[in-house]
Amino acid sequence: MSSNAPSEPGTIMSGEMAEQPAVLRRILDEGAGAIREVAGRIAAKNPRFVLLTARGTSDNAALYAKYLLEIKLGKPCGLTSMSTTTAYGAEPDLTDCLVITISQSGGSPDLVASTKAAREAGALTLAVTNNADSPLAQVSEYHIDVLAGPEKALPATKTYTAQLLALYLFVEGLRTAGQEAGEAGAADAAAKLPELAEAVLARKAEVKELAARYRFAERMVLTSRGYGYPTAKEAALKLMETSYIPALSYSGADLLHGPLAMVDNISPVIAVVGDGKGGEALRPVLERLRDRGADLVVIGREAEVARASAGFALPTGGLPEELQPIVQILPLQMLAYEVTMARGQDPDAPRSLAKVTETR
Amino acid sequence: MSSNAPSEPGTIMSGEMAEQPAVLRRILDEGAGAIREVAGRIAAKNPRFVLLTARGTSDNAALYAKYLLEIKLGKPCGLTSMSTTTAYGAEPDLTDCLVITISQSGGSPDLVASTKAAREAGALTLAVTNNADSPLAQVSEYHIDVLAGPEKALPATKTYTAQLLALYLFVEGLRTAGQEAGEAGAADAAAKLPELAEAVLARKAEVKELAARYRFAERMVLTSRGYGYPTAKEAALKLMETSYIPALSYSGADLLHGPLAMVDNISPVIAVVGDGKGGEALRPVLERLRDRGADLVVIGREAEVARASAGFALPTGGLPEELQPIVQILPLQMLAYEVTMARGQDPDAPRSLAKVTETR
Repeated sequence: MSSNAPSEPGTIMSGEMAEQPAVLRRILDEGAGAIREVAGRIAAKNPRFVLLTARGTSDNAALYAKYLLEIKLGKPCGLTSMSTTTAYGAEPDLTDCLVITISQSGGSPDLVASTKAAREAGALTLAVTNNADSPLAQVSEYHIDVLAGPEKALPATKTYTAQLLALYLFVEGLRTAGQEAGEAGAADAAAKLPELAEAVLARKAEVKELAARYRFAERMVLTSRGYGYPTAKEAALKLMETSYIPALSYSGADLLHGPLAMVDNISPVIAVVGDGKGGEALRPVLERLRDRGADLVVIGREAEVARASAGFALPTGGLPEELQPIVQILPLQMLAYEVTMARGQDPDAPRSLAKVTETR
Repeated sequence: MSSNAPSEPGTIMSGEMAEQPAVLRRILDEGAGAIREVAGRIAAKNPRFVLLTARGTSDNAALYAKYLLEIKLGKPCGLTSMSTTTAYGAEPDLTDCLVITISQSGGSPDLVASTKAAREAGALTLAVTNNADSPLAQVSEYHIDVLAGPEKALPATKTYTAQLLALYLFVEGLRTAGQEAGEAGAADAAAKLPELAEAVLARKAEVKELAARYRFAERMVLTSRGYGYPTAKEAALKLMETSYIPALSYSGADLLHGPLAMVDNISPVIAVVGDGKGGEALRPVLERLRDRGADLVVIGREAEVARASAGFALPTGGLPEELQPIVQILPLQMLAYEVTMARGQDPDAPRSLAKVTETR
């Protein structure tokens, strides 16, 4: 993976997790201007519908962007089913559509093919990658660089939080295009992120204690609603690809529609509870879980942590709910790391995975 | 649940599964004309984008419709994140959008609220339900009745296949609106469904043998691509809500992006392999799974069943790939039923679940 001598298990992933405050600062200091410019150019063309294309961790960032676009801009959005183009050769009419393709490496051939097809079908195309020289960046009309620096551990961490912040700034750029105060507003709201991220990453001992709870877990369920839902999905993916624990994620509403049968007191549940409307909407679900005697760990609102079996309270420092996911995922990345280390596995290089997945 | 005396475990679910050929026949004989009429009226308004709203089993039917709409009509589609409206009060501009809301009962308050909001925001609204008198049918501009008759078991079976067929006929109706041959074409292609469904449902002994394999499984992974992917998701939901086995579903491409680490030889994999482009696109994934020594059960193409650890071969009888999901799900419903019975649980009434889920 790296050309250097093999390192101790977990050092690459933990190093990259630790870089996150610096990456967030870099985006705010060096990337925000370029993102705002791209947003301004796209806003001028006024796309009516947005399609998001991504896989794996980037797909969870895409879902985050979908919430932002729907809630803050009122744009109808969809997540692409890529095989409709790559396997079935669908030829959609994408006039007035913005297609955003999100990929760490920008190298997966199916993403490149589907972006090319979208551009030919009349879409505005925007690539969000960690590699400005990548094939995906080349075939897209617009590009946003998430500036996370090379990512070598197989589980994506710093590129995920970088994608979230870049997408937040992009949507804010669309929303406030042409307004002078827009730039300062978005930057102000996000300014505290690096510091808050640093404070969370320093709470390693707390996460280690939580991790002990899952040392022998055979399954886990993650849940949230609204802006926190992509966090639940990304946490499940992270836990699964590092520790191999089957981790299922559901929106709180979907959980009540079937999978709740599986929870009871045999599957531990982790709920991501934001401070805002999504967290509020999750309350009846938390109540139902407590009634059923579920082992419930809450990541987020202090008041809900206090009523749960255990948890990790996240002070928001006044962050609006839509920026909280950038901080919320950190203890969950750390949890995946700690559970995996406790199980004697190497989170840097899970079996079977290649960093750039060549699906076609 | 029923007002009658308590029945033997599983009799309600197995009775409803057995009704499926008759339900499919009823839709073709008595429902197709009304569906075609609704499709013609909507086609005349030429919506440019389609949003699909549903939860649980109906959400898997929505995903099936998304593939049809994208591949056969080239309409950009999205699955709604309902909380954007119900929790965050998003006010999207839905001019030129068709919003399809799919629900067995048509009674869930959040679906009713979000459909109302969509209609006020300028969308064409279509409800697909099993109850023409339901609140959802009332608030929608158009309605399609899936004619499945009362469904009493908690795991949805006959309403799922009825939704798929109704949605297939609807999309065919959109595609061929104004063409005289359209009606006969769609009906012809689907005419064999009841008979094929009957033949599959008769193969109970084969499914029982497959079920023995999962008697002690602690996790399962389901995978497919294209039109088969909703089948994989619905099978995972069915297994989970009846047997409580954590069952994860991934598109073949997503499986290679992370969860493959979890598979290896410890998680049995069930692959849904259609006879067509989706099945073709899945082949490299099946190869990768075989290379890693995964326990692979194939539902579908006979040639792939022969190369797998075990399977259930589905003769297509010349069915086009897009209609195969209506048959593919049957052995998987039966599998969920048999695994659950073998574990001494009652598939009719999984703990924690209510038939109409009152999420808000």
